[in-house]
Amino acid sequence: MASCRVPDVVPSPVEDVEQLRKAFAGWGTNEGLIISILTHRNAAQRKLIQQTYAETYGEDLLKSLDKELSSDFERAVVLWTLAPAERDAFLANESTKLLTKNYWILLEIATTRSSHDLYQVKLAYHARYKKSLEEDVAYHTSGDVRKLLVPLLSTFRYEGDDINVPLSKKEAKILHEKISDKAYNDEELIRILTTRSKAQLNATLNQYNNEFGNAINKDLKADKDDEFLKLLRQTIKSLTFPEKYFEKVLRLGINKLGTEEGALTRVITTRAEVDLQRIKEEYYRRNSVHLDHAIVKDTSGDYEKFLVELVGHADA
Amino acid sequence: MASCRVPDVVPSPVEDVEQLRKAFAGWGTNEGLIISILTHRNAAQRKLIQQTYAETYGEDLLKSLDKELSSDFERAVVLWTLAPAERDAFLANESTKLLTKNYWILLEIATTRSSHDLYQVKLAYHARYKKSLEEDVAYHTSGDVRKLLVPLLSTFRYEGDDINVPLSKKEAKILHEKISDKAYNDEELIRILTTRSKAQLNATLNQYNNEFGNAINKDLKADKDDEFLKLLRQTIKSLTFPEKYFEKVLRLGINKLGTEEGALTRVITTRAEVDLQRIKEEYYRRNSVHLDHAIVKDTSGDYEKFLVELVGHADA
Repeated sequence: MASCRVPDVVPSPVEDVEQLRKAFAGWGTNEGLIISILTHRNAAQRKLIQQTYAETYGEDLLKSLDKELSSDFERAVVLWTLAPAERDAFLANESTKLLTKNYWILLEIATTRSSHDLYQVKLAYHARYKKSLEEDVAYHTSGDVRKLLVPLLSTFRYEGDDINVPLSKKEAKILHEKISDKAYNDEELIRILTTRSKAQLNATLNQYNNEFGNAINKDLKADKDDEFLKLLRQTIKSLTFPEKYFEKVLRLGINKLGTEEGALTRVITTRAEVDLQRIKEEYYRRNSVHLDHAIVKDTSGDYEKFLVELVGHADA
Repeated sequence: MASCRVPDVVPSPVEDVEQLRKAFAGWGTNEGLIISILTHRNAAQRKLIQQTYAETYGEDLLKSLDKELSSDFERAVVLWTLAPAERDAFLANESTKLLTKNYWILLEIATTRSSHDLYQVKLAYHARYKKSLEEDVAYHTSGDVRKLLVPLLSTFRYEGDDINVPLSKKEAKILHEKISDKAYNDEELIRILTTRSKAQLNATLNQYNNEFGNAINKDLKADKDDEFLKLLRQTIKSLTFPEKYFEKVLRLGINKLGTEEGALTRVITTRAEVDLQRIKEEYYRRNSVHLDHAIVKDTSGDYEKFLVELVGHADA
């Protein structure tokens, strides 16, 4: 469930761009006005605003926002304003260029987007970067990380609820054998994680738990600091329980000495129209603090206001 | 360029299904009438005919064809009548169930369809089989074949003409090193073949030829009978010169002791609306016989008539 709220009567795109233009005009920028408009428009409405802005003023709204705003607030507003597929393509491309830990965000995009949405990301990636997401990721990774990440991003998973029970038993056994042998990069294990539908994989992992007495992620904690085991655990968690996965990303981002704005901005802008409502529930369950209160405590100024508007108030 | 010809004035779907129904009626089936209608309708028109037939008679046209026709002729008509994405999904699924050499057709589908068409095949596969193409192929293959085939089918290649020349030089060098070391299943080699756009790969292979003095497929002939090397050569050929690849499939299919109808039917029904015109040119160049003459010589009856109508006459 989305957390972003659209008013019952939405102003026309023409009215919205006039208001935005006013907010940019003169010496100071009216950040409050920008926040109040953009946080309460859905992806389709924001797209119309972008188009209308370009037609009316001959300028790109994203460039104007870039010019008028700065730092964390700017990045949050720009990411939010982007269409979901373009935003993911941008985040994914940025990740391929980072030297370290670039794969966490790619893993997140590969595992928590629907097959259709991931396809849209690939189309946006082609259009924007004139190459494919897969070739960039394959080029910038190697070894076990590549072995897991490229098929995760490539596969077009079936999304129905149909489950094959004998198959789930068979593959639970394969997973257990490989993990018992510490063959974590085994191709059968990777095949199962990267090609099966989320419903089928879930059935297999339940079977694993029933049959062998442990949740698979517990068995994958043999070596707590092994980076590849971490990747496998994240893959399983974000495929089968994305709200819990996102709760953890937010928790670690907020609790860090100095909030990690990258994670906070990314999770809120990418999930506000998807499942942020459920993520907020998980956050409260795990931290006994409402997400909006945590954000108010750890951030400030327009950035804080913007995030809180997207998240919604716990008391509302 | 397509070989299939649609008349200037196309009868309405209602007229077409009335004629088809007439062809099915009574004791004998009027195969000639079926051929004259279906071979001269494009995919969109055939789809309308299928819909209109179902609405008018409450029966599935494919089932009626199945009932009225038989053997090679039946299979050719049914494959042709299917929408391209559904036909490929059907052929791919059938291939995953064969015990041997099942991967040649999968390789063909992975490498000769456009990224968009391959995506449509995956959608059709989901809809029809309630699972993904990738999971079935990964499940039914293993070792080096899986290592090559699954990413070939999974990747959503960029299709633009943009070429990065320094990159093509760099990757030509990588390919040459791996092949010199006989590291044919090396992951860098597979990454390049499975993720790069056809234009970029072509630039890389040209670079390879210029720099190292041999076409890559010549260097991949070190062991002529090695099955994996054959797969690599087919991959490269069908990615970079599909008409030549299809010419060879037709040539081997027709020249076999007893024509291999599987290959003949498949290539003609899948390419008649795409590039069969170009394939015919390659066929004539290589065999000094026109494809329609070769078909007349090696097949007979309604099957022959059907294929020749799709291929078109060399003398026409």
